[in-house]
Amino acid sequence: MNRIDPIPDPGPLAPQPPHPPSRGGGRKGCHPVQLSRSGSKMASLSGLRLIMDDIAATTGSATGKAWLNLGIGNPAAIPKVMDTWKQLATEALAASFEDVSCRYGPSRGLPDLVDAIAGYFNRRYSWNIGPRNIVVGPGSQMLCFIAAALFTGPGENRDTKLVLPMTPDYTGYQGLSLTPGGITGVEPVVQIEDDRSFRYLFDLPALEGLTDVGLMLLSSPSNPAGRCASPEEIQRLLTAARGHDVPLVVDNAYGPPFPAIGGEFSVPVWDDHVINVFSVSKAGLPGERLGFAIADERHVDPIVSFMSNSALHAPQLVQSTLAHALRSDVLDTLVATVIGPFYAERRKFVESLLTESLPQDIAWQLHAAEGGMFCWLWVDEEWFDDLRLYETLKRRGVFVVPGRHFFTDPEHGTRLGRHPQQCFRISITPDPDTIAAGVEIIAATLGDMRPGTV
Amino acid sequence: MNRIDPIPDPGPLAPQPPHPPSRGGGRKGCHPVQLSRSGSKMASLSGLRLIMDDIAATTGSATGKAWLNLGIGNPAAIPKVMDTWKQLATEALAASFEDVSCRYGPSRGLPDLVDAIAGYFNRRYSWNIGPRNIVVGPGSQMLCFIAAALFTGPGENRDTKLVLPMTPDYTGYQGLSLTPGGITGVEPVVQIEDDRSFRYLFDLPALEGLTDVGLMLLSSPSNPAGRCASPEEIQRLLTAARGHDVPLVVDNAYGPPFPAIGGEFSVPVWDDHVINVFSVSKAGLPGERLGFAIADERHVDPIVSFMSNSALHAPQLVQSTLAHALRSDVLDTLVATVIGPFYAERRKFVESLLTESLPQDIAWQLHAAEGGMFCWLWVDEEWFDDLRLYETLKRRGVFVVPGRHFFTDPEHGTRLGRHPQQCFRISITPDPDTIAAGVEIIAATLGDMRPGTV
Repeated sequence: MNRIDPIPDPGPLAPQPPHPPSRGGGRKGCHPVQLSRSGSKMASLSGLRLIMDDIAATTGSATGKAWLNLGIGNPAAIPKVMDTWKQLATEALAASFEDVSCRYGPSRGLPDLVDAIAGYFNRRYSWNIGPRNIVVGPGSQMLCFIAAALFTGPGENRDTKLVLPMTPDYTGYQGLSLTPGGITGVEPVVQIEDDRSFRYLFDLPALEGLTDVGLMLLSSPSNPAGRCASPEEIQRLLTAARGHDVPLVVDNAYGPPFPAIGGEFSVPVWDDHVINVFSVSKAGLPGERLGFAIADERHVDPIVSFMSNSALHAPQLVQSTLAHALRSDVLDTLVATVIGPFYAERRKFVESLLTESLPQDIAWQLHAAEGGMFCWLWVDEEWFDDLRLYETLKRRGVFVVPGRHFFTDPEHGTRLGRHPQQCFRISITPDPDTIAAGVEIIAATLGDMRPGTV
Repeated sequence: MNRIDPIPDPGPLAPQPPHPPSRGGGRKGCHPVQLSRSGSKMASLSGLRLIMDDIAATTGSATGKAWLNLGIGNPAAIPKVMDTWKQLATEALAASFEDVSCRYGPSRGLPDLVDAIAGYFNRRYSWNIGPRNIVVGPGSQMLCFIAAALFTGPGENRDTKLVLPMTPDYTGYQGLSLTPGGITGVEPVVQIEDDRSFRYLFDLPALEGLTDVGLMLLSSPSNPAGRCASPEEIQRLLTAARGHDVPLVVDNAYGPPFPAIGGEFSVPVWDDHVINVFSVSKAGLPGERLGFAIADERHVDPIVSFMSNSALHAPQLVQSTLAHALRSDVLDTLVATVIGPFYAERRKFVESLLTESLPQDIAWQLHAAEGGMFCWLWVDEEWFDDLRLYETLKRRGVFVVPGRHFFTDPEHGTRLGRHPQQCFRISITPDPDTIAAGVEIIAATLGDMRPGTV
């Protein structure tokens, strides 16, 4: 998942691009609307969503200004990737439009796709799964939303929370809970690797010490830090999950088998406490909203029922398209020969650009990223503030994503101190010229932000 | 919406078709899973869903038996309709795949589609709506689920319910509420039209007398009865909605402007208390899950935010396809020249078939249907039971849908007495031969069910 920051909708909380007249509240003074408690929670947007709305509304407005947007979350527009998916979709449309688009389908997913997924994972990872272990959804974010609604919140005996075993993590997770205050994040241990590189470690005792855990959820490789949980770390998280007797959702949106951005350093782990979630978004199809989960039946069955009661099922032409891709080796080949090398080279390019450009006399550090689509920077200076950087860069035509919103409780004093306000995220997916021009302005801005600068 | 009974997933509660081995509970004795209160509610399937699972599992099993399935909810497979959508989808794919499928989009919907919807409704109904009045969703059932979650359930001051102003109505509505017992249906007044025709009327005093209403929701034309609320009735429902100060969701899945099954006898009503929901499913694209809502900003804005926090946005290639259709007159032409005439003729065929075939000496009556895809029959005989009919017909290779599940509280003694158990639904969308053969067996079975029959 982690399809953070789609071109966001300029919601009521964000600057509005010019619109034709519309009917209602906004125009004639808002008549109050009564929302349920869950409704109020779900009607609110995360701090980051407001930032993304700001970026979209700003870059979308007709100022004629050329923005350097390093805040985007779209996968890179790789022609070979887009061409391949377009070809697969064209074939699926020609072959099965009447069967899949003109008829309802099962809430679990198109049988052709469900079988293809089982075959693919059994072949590739020697798992022993069947259709009952699989559920396809309209995007993996929806699957995570469903899991959060099923396994967290007010229960018969206790209220449980959605727990992020390590922050920073995908801010979209904070929007998943139907319950106000329904999410808790465990702060990481910060480990300095060398003078320009640092790394987050899991605080497992803190995780194990939590009470009222309903579900654990993490992205790996992670958004924003690009951190990848090792098989050993997954096993230790599973020990904690068993201790709490809750499922661990592992969001493989950037990981293997596709898009495997960062390589094959790890493989998904099967366990009867794991819900593995996969997405085709970062492999090139974010706009079609397709994801799937693989887990023990006792976790899959309620997800299927929830799907049947809410979205009914995922769109089917894209399901048929993915089934075609999984039955052939086209997707594996794309990952191995195009997507993998592209992001590896791109990361190298951006990281060396940062090393060359950012002021040497400022204590900035880059998270040691094993994968994903972002660079996560920490400016370990008392004077640095992520929102101030955001605003300053915005005035200079550059967008980055301030770091605090990736933490669940950034405002209050924590063991991390001001660390959450000292980080920001840049995307490695824009074209190299945009990144180079943006990084140059970021470097100059950091210099200007430094106290004592004339 | 009312996309009742998709080919359902054989869930854990239904007979299982043969499956490869799967991992987990089912195999090694179910390890209990802890669900939240909302989770338990959403993990349960409505009585009707179990029936549909039974139908799917039975017809899907390799018995070689030719089933006569009059229980299906798919729109009729009309070649001209499928060809038109296929052509539109092919054009959209060729023209905009890279732009819409390979990028994230706004939670409100693809701007191209949102603008096309505003233009279409302003042109056609002289409304004065803008993008802020519109939200596109991954199926209109998802939009109704979101509305139910936003406007009903535990609130700061009170707990409110999802209210169906008239039962029987789409059984899927009963799965929308996150809250156990979160839905209430108002029983209709039954009016005899003539000896073979009856009609449901709204019980408005009962509706107005309800307390703790959070949202009102109805399908029109309705599933199952094919009843269409007149503009006057909508206005009276709106008076009740204003009295309760809640939105009225009108689900136009079968109504105008498309598919307009039943004709143009009514038009959608704009009002600042109405949330009009539209779907392309019954117009021919149920498998792609696309719907949209048009309402006052104060109702649309929270739906957009909920979308952004859950499903993120609807699939975009089908959004682009619909935008193409709305900008041209192709969809209007399809409705006027193909879809409308097809269902009008088909309904005439099925109704005359029933009149000729069903036993004259049994007090059966047909609901006076103005539209929709079903015939709703009431057998006003003490000995008749809808589930007994279902089981008997199943043994004879025919599937119909028992009526009780379309009522929210069919089991308990009500003003309607046994009426909810005396109704059943048949679909007019299967091919005529299937319908004719099915109706013949239904007629014979009714005769056999009658007491005193040797």
